[in-house]
Amino acid sequence: MADILHRVGIKSSLDEVYKALTTREGLAAWWTHDTQGESKVGGGLKFRFSADGSEIGGFDMKILELQPAKRVLWQVVDGPVDWIDTKISFQLKQESEYSIVLFKHQDWKEPVEFMHHCSTKWATFLMSLKSLLESGEGAPNPNDIKIGNWH
Amino acid sequence: MADILHRVGIKSSLDEVYKALTTREGLAAWWTHDTQGESKVGGGLKFRFSADGSEIGGFDMKILELQPAKRVLWQVVDGPVDWIDTKISFQLKQESEYSIVLFKHQDWKEPVEFMHHCSTKWATFLMSLKSLLESGEGAPNPNDIKIGNWH
Repeated sequence: MADILHRVGIKSSLDEVYKALTTREGLAAWWTHDTQGESKVGGGLKFRFSADGSEIGGFDMKILELQPAKRVLWQVVDGPVDWIDTKISFQLKQESEYSIVLFKHQDWKEPVEFMHHCSTKWATFLMSLKSLLESGEGAPNPNDIKIGNWH
Repeated sequence: MADILHRVGIKSSLDEVYKALTTREGLAAWWTHDTQGESKVGGGLKFRFSADGSEIGGFDMKILELQPAKRVLWQVVDGPVDWIDTKISFQLKQESEYSIVLFKHQDWKEPVEFMHHCSTKWATFLMSLKSLLESGEGAPNPNDIKIGNWH
């Protein structure tokens, strides 16, 4: 098993960060415009991505945990085969004027090349989350930062 | 043991990417201005970082492998305790008009919080490498992208 890890510090309140991770509007403003579903424990969220005007796939998540201002945990129930049954967590804490986000996308079966790509891509999306909360503007798909030939 | 993985695709030749990873001038233009030493197998490179005008630490690397246009492997011989004896590799290959960089910072003893930070920070530095080669301008320290309270 292998995990993708990240950490960003955001000059914003824990409540605001939590809201951006747990509302359709928040998620659509930093990860992907095409976010559907409801963020409640046991419920599901569907994230779809497009490039050059065409849908290129996405992820369906089941919400396993929601601890306000503290922790979010999703399980991937549909999407690319390498993602199925992996889990994604966001752990929040305060340090001086920063809300710290500890991110983990865990339980990849193998450290495949796609995992390398997703690790870099997650970093750019977490910077999009940071930018959304600090400046009011994120870079969600389809306006996301391109990191190579896999978008 | 735990590894940081990344993948970027750069619209540049393998030779240019290799040069940016193996010359003092190249490394200084995307990772840190304060790069000293010589990139030859068995030799060493010293990378130092600063913030707000003061040095905040750095890394000493021993060069273990240099395969032109293919692979670079360093071992960390001095720096933060979590980094000592970890290895850093850059694997290069061509895909259509992109030079693909598969990055690995391997053999962390524990997935400590600092590893989360370094993973995100490596992503921003690899995007700096991409930017340097595609547009002529990187974002090396001290002009690097700040990702939180740990810089």
